[in-house]
Amino acid sequence: MTEVKGFKFAVAEAAIKAPGRNDCALIVSDTPANCAGVFTKNKVIAAPLIVTKPRIAAGQCQAVLINSGNANACTGEQGLADARASSAELAAALQIDASLVAVASTGVIGVPLPVERLISAIPTLCGVLAADQAAAVADAIMTTDSFSKTASRTFEIEGQSCTVLGVAKGAGMIHPNMATMLGFVMTDAAVAPELLQPVLREAVDDSFNSITVDGDTSTNDMVLVLANGQAGNVEIQPQSEEAELFSAAVLDVLLELAKMIVRDGEGATKLVQIDLCGAEDDDQAKIAARSVATSSLVKTAFFGEDANWGRIIAAVGYSGVEVDPNRIDIFFDDIQVVRDGLTTGAADEELATQVLKQAEFRVTVDLHLGDGCSSYYTSDLTYDYVKINADYRT
Amino acid sequence: MTEVKGFKFAVAEAAIKAPGRNDCALIVSDTPANCAGVFTKNKVIAAPLIVTKPRIAAGQCQAVLINSGNANACTGEQGLADARASSAELAAALQIDASLVAVASTGVIGVPLPVERLISAIPTLCGVLAADQAAAVADAIMTTDSFSKTASRTFEIEGQSCTVLGVAKGAGMIHPNMATMLGFVMTDAAVAPELLQPVLREAVDDSFNSITVDGDTSTNDMVLVLANGQAGNVEIQPQSEEAELFSAAVLDVLLELAKMIVRDGEGATKLVQIDLCGAEDDDQAKIAARSVATSSLVKTAFFGEDANWGRIIAAVGYSGVEVDPNRIDIFFDDIQVVRDGLTTGAADEELATQVLKQAEFRVTVDLHLGDGCSSYYTSDLTYDYVKINADYRT
Repeated sequence: MTEVKGFKFAVAEAAIKAPGRNDCALIVSDTPANCAGVFTKNKVIAAPLIVTKPRIAAGQCQAVLINSGNANACTGEQGLADARASSAELAAALQIDASLVAVASTGVIGVPLPVERLISAIPTLCGVLAADQAAAVADAIMTTDSFSKTASRTFEIEGQSCTVLGVAKGAGMIHPNMATMLGFVMTDAAVAPELLQPVLREAVDDSFNSITVDGDTSTNDMVLVLANGQAGNVEIQPQSEEAELFSAAVLDVLLELAKMIVRDGEGATKLVQIDLCGAEDDDQAKIAARSVATSSLVKTAFFGEDANWGRIIAAVGYSGVEVDPNRIDIFFDDIQVVRDGLTTGAADEELATQVLKQAEFRVTVDLHLGDGCSSYYTSDLTYDYVKINADYRT
Repeated sequence: MTEVKGFKFAVAEAAIKAPGRNDCALIVSDTPANCAGVFTKNKVIAAPLIVTKPRIAAGQCQAVLINSGNANACTGEQGLADARASSAELAAALQIDASLVAVASTGVIGVPLPVERLISAIPTLCGVLAADQAAAVADAIMTTDSFSKTASRTFEIEGQSCTVLGVAKGAGMIHPNMATMLGFVMTDAAVAPELLQPVLREAVDDSFNSITVDGDTSTNDMVLVLANGQAGNVEIQPQSEEAELFSAAVLDVLLELAKMIVRDGEGATKLVQIDLCGAEDDDQAKIAARSVATSSLVKTAFFGEDANWGRIIAAVGYSGVEVDPNRIDIFFDDIQVVRDGLTTGAADEELATQVLKQAEFRVTVDLHLGDGCSSYYTSDLTYDYVKINADYRT
């Protein structure tokens, strides 16, 4: 597993999930790290986010404590007290200030967090901290995920190698009952504090905010970036060439993780990239791409391997963006099925059907109105999606 | 079948759908009727809507020609010419002005309308017009519908009985490939032209615009009301008591039809009413109700008969409306499962599970912030939904 200078990781079993599964994880930097965070826009916010948001906003973080199996959401005052207690215990064990501790939870909503069990796992966690355990963290924070998700990139600054390592979980965007989207990005690069938040925000917009499995947004979604400067590079400043390198590395890592989440989408059998171009601007492109990517009809057609462009054109049409129906082109990979809003014929549709048989393909919609472009990543809607979500709690 | 004074109906087989099924229908008023219409907000608009919208806006309509099996959408200039040609042929056959003819289509997108076949059915249609054939119209305009949809109400104005009769189709909200939402309301009441549009708009908002099966909006959606005044009542004027009676009758008819559409939703096994109250205002209530009603996670939980209030509270939270999580109450029928944002306990959840086993039930969410209330009607998301939509064109 890729290592990041000055970061250590640990996992343990706190008996929050079923026996035999690690369900808590710890990320610690040797020194306080500059940090930034992006949090759910859901107005129902889980307790760990209420505790963590102001701490991240203060700009420094040294440790992240994560549990799976319980979201500590809709748990009222007790939930808040539990989140604070666990972070205080960890701070004491690490002999750091509690304001440097972030906490994150994912799992069932509305059930009190078994906080004593989490707290009693803290000594174990602190005892097994190691530099090569990031993959174990990715594994321990899973809920309905069928595989763990890590990604990394390195880049050089004046001969100094810097690493960006990300771990994430999520398989459903988002099923608030048991899953959620969590992402943690660790880098040993020294990064100016004022650069971190815009870089993270932009990368999240083009990755985690450009994927959909079912369109739902959890109470617990959280992405954090910690930059501890242990690579020894000169601190990366905004609007520099180095900032571009760093920004690209963060985006690459988050996009790779985001695509894994779609691929792992509940019941999903296909990963489909929706490229929407020719919109009046990028924002309009994103709205239209999202409309196509979230349409249940489009997603079931993908599952049925049906090159049903009528559903795609309709989803663009009701997205609310500016559209001239007589100028729309649609492609499946390189096969054009619609030119100027009209079918290119049955032969092309037959070719397109072959494209849809692939596990991964691209749908390109060109509105021919301007330069606005955006990509969105989606999955197909399958029997198993219904099965997983209908049977989930039973 | 209920009759409406001065209206006649006919159906025929034009070989647009599979052989042996009626696929075109005609509604004719003995005299030009005052009219109003509500049309899809999709920016990709089918040819029949382009032809019909300005005619309805002009305020008078005498005949409606409808075909199923082909949407005449994404068919370019030829589609427009076809829509105009069929309406011109009908006008000639009925010896009325073409501006008094409305046309509507529903079916496959992107395939040229076999307009000669439709035109050749017009003599048959005109030959079999009869007052008691409204049910046959409801039947002939079906696509994936599993049952035909009609509803009617009568009300009295100074001893004069007036009838409102509606026919509709739709089973999916909306699958643009084959289905769409069409509604036609005929009344023999004399109604002031300026009253018709606001009454229809309001009734559609609280009925067809308050249901969801899959959240998609078709290129062909259309609801028309024709008021021919044959009941002989004094013309109903805006802001009168009679206007209230008329408005209530139209809403009742449309709401009954709308609920039929949800009940007939593709693969649906349950009809669920989402009552959202205590919002800051009615608009906020509608947004939150819609968010719950369209959540794939909530809908699959209904299918799984799982009283999964966490998904409901999350859907309210990400709807964007003002929410205080600590004041939310949630009920399944009369069983309260959430009080002040917290669970009422396992025993209540067990009782709620019994509610979910019913074919019809109500979810009430009270935000306790104001007087805003709105209702939304939805179905469950089932294996059969995926099956119908994945396999549809194959």
